Amino acid sequence: MTERITADPQVATVPVRRVRDGAVQIDEDWLAVEEPLEIRLQYEEGGAPRFRQLAITMRTPGHDAELAAGFLVSEGIVRCATEIEYTQHCPITDAQTSHNVLTVRLAPGVAFDAKRLERNFYTTSSCGVCGKTSLEALDLVGCPTLPTGSPRLAPDTIHRLPETLRAAQDVFEQTGGLHAAALFSPSGDLLRVREDVGRHNAVDKLIGSFFFEDRLPLAEGILFVSGRTSFELAQKALMAGVPVLAAVSAPSSLAVSLANEFGMTLLGFVRDGRFNIYAGANRIADAE
Amino acid sequence: MTERITADPQVATVPVRRVRDGAVQIDEDWLAVEEPLEIRLQYEEGGAPRFRQLAITMRTPGHDAELAAGFLVSEGIVRCATEIEYTQHCPITDAQTSHNVLTVRLAPGVAFDAKRLERNFYTTSSCGVCGKTSLEALDLVGCPTLPTGSPRLAPDTIHRLPETLRAAQDVFEQTGGLHAAALFSPSGDLLRVREDVGRHNAVDKLIGSFFFEDRLPLAEGILFVSGRTSFELAQKALMAGVPVLAAVSAPSSLAVSLANEFGMTLLGFVRDGRFNIYAGANRIADAE
Repeated sequence: MTERITADPQVATVPVRRVRDGAVQIDEDWLAVEEPLEIRLQYEEGGAPRFRQLAITMRTPGHDAELAAGFLVSEGIVRCATEIEYTQHCPITDAQTSHNVLTVRLAPGVAFDAKRLERNFYTTSSCGVCGKTSLEALDLVGCPTLPTGSPRLAPDTIHRLPETLRAAQDVFEQTGGLHAAALFSPSGDLLRVREDVGRHNAVDKLIGSFFFEDRLPLAEGILFVSGRTSFELAQKALMAGVPVLAAVSAPSSLAVSLANEFGMTLLGFVRDGRFNIYAGANRIADAE
Repeated sequence: MTERITADPQVATVPVRRVRDGAVQIDEDWLAVEEPLEIRLQYEEGGAPRFRQLAITMRTPGHDAELAAGFLVSEGIVRCATEIEYTQHCPITDAQTSHNVLTVRLAPGVAFDAKRLERNFYTTSSCGVCGKTSLEALDLVGCPTLPTGSPRLAPDTIHRLPETLRAAQDVFEQTGGLHAAALFSPSGDLLRVREDVGRHNAVDKLIGSFFFEDRLPLAEGILFVSGRTSFELAQKALMAGVPVLAAVSAPSSLAVSLANEFGMTLLGFVRDGRFNIYAGANRIADAE
């Protein structure tokens, strides 16, 4: 069974047999921890307290409050830090809490429409029944308007993103056990990085961390992700007001559609001294 | 906007600007198509017809019936082909159907317990509130018992999996735009491959294709996936009765726990002439 020996809750040590060149070596290996997190919402409706299970996600433990906040931002439920009164892991006994159940309490007076959420899940997160509908639904949720033509980025700034991210990660993260999401400044400085077994969780944790500092929308930010860009990742970037989304691998067709529709710059294959511009070339110097 | 020029519904052609060595080249690029699929279930309850929205997933179009069937197998709703009477894309007009909405009609007499499904989603797909609970829940769903110590595999068979898969894929798939899931025989023959923007969808499509041929459980199969192994992928393999799950990249901690609990062989980092055994070494010759 999986047993944690390291102090890092994101990493589990497991026995492994390494097979190479006809030899078997018995050893230990480090793996990314994957555990479910249940996010519960507590809010008021007509003066009465209400509870609701919002989501269950398979995540790497750590930064749970930020994950939940980022998720709420993505769903259009909250926009600024004062709208969340507190978050807490659920108490089991007086001394213990369950680290896999997190309650988010909305501030008094913050409206939460459970019916709208269902529609929202149906048409955006869970993504609607056609791309067009999804894109229209996002508009309705009230995403921030991205700044036109800003920030303006030098191609060299983009070329340096992968190396800067790698230098900030430790050996384990470089093995590819975790997905990374990082925010960079327009001059290419790494502002913050978050990791998770799930790509969408890494992005939620990153956005949630800036949410609690009341720094949304991230109108000057470059969001750089370690894998591919799906519709869902582009949606999260948009809801956080990020104008530039860059990825090591390919975007999906629907991510490109969303970027074009909302004026986001979408870059793919950012590696080995090259990158592709799929949308928003006006933010890249000399690329129009 | 994304526009399809190719005849392949899995691939979209989009304009791209390629930036390299200070030069910008205007070109076209191929991307994996990502669109939502809504799966609806039609069944009888007390003689009366019932409908239920089962799931919405972001998938690459194609093999939708197999995707839905594989999903139903993973959730323990069906086990053999006769339990599905038919699947059909929903009619919009007399001449047209929506290719993003699929109805699955269960055969008369096949019981479907909507309440159990909710519990099931809650504790397995959506994964419960702790790993242990998830594993216990899987047991309750009634997954097939894996054959003990069978199949018995030569390490060379494992080493050859990546090359055999690559040879079966076309250039676009090799660019990494799609995830692949493939079933191999114990002697290393590639039986079938399915691709999708979503890893879980590729596995559902593969399992669903064997389901319709009434070949589950896949008790002699090696399931090989192009990315990492999460709890969810291991769960799908288990529900289809696959005894060996191999991946190009790392497993998560919970995938290893599940494999140990249910006697599944779990291999990671199957590439470049090596692989790691995380569980079930008894199925690999000379590795115990």
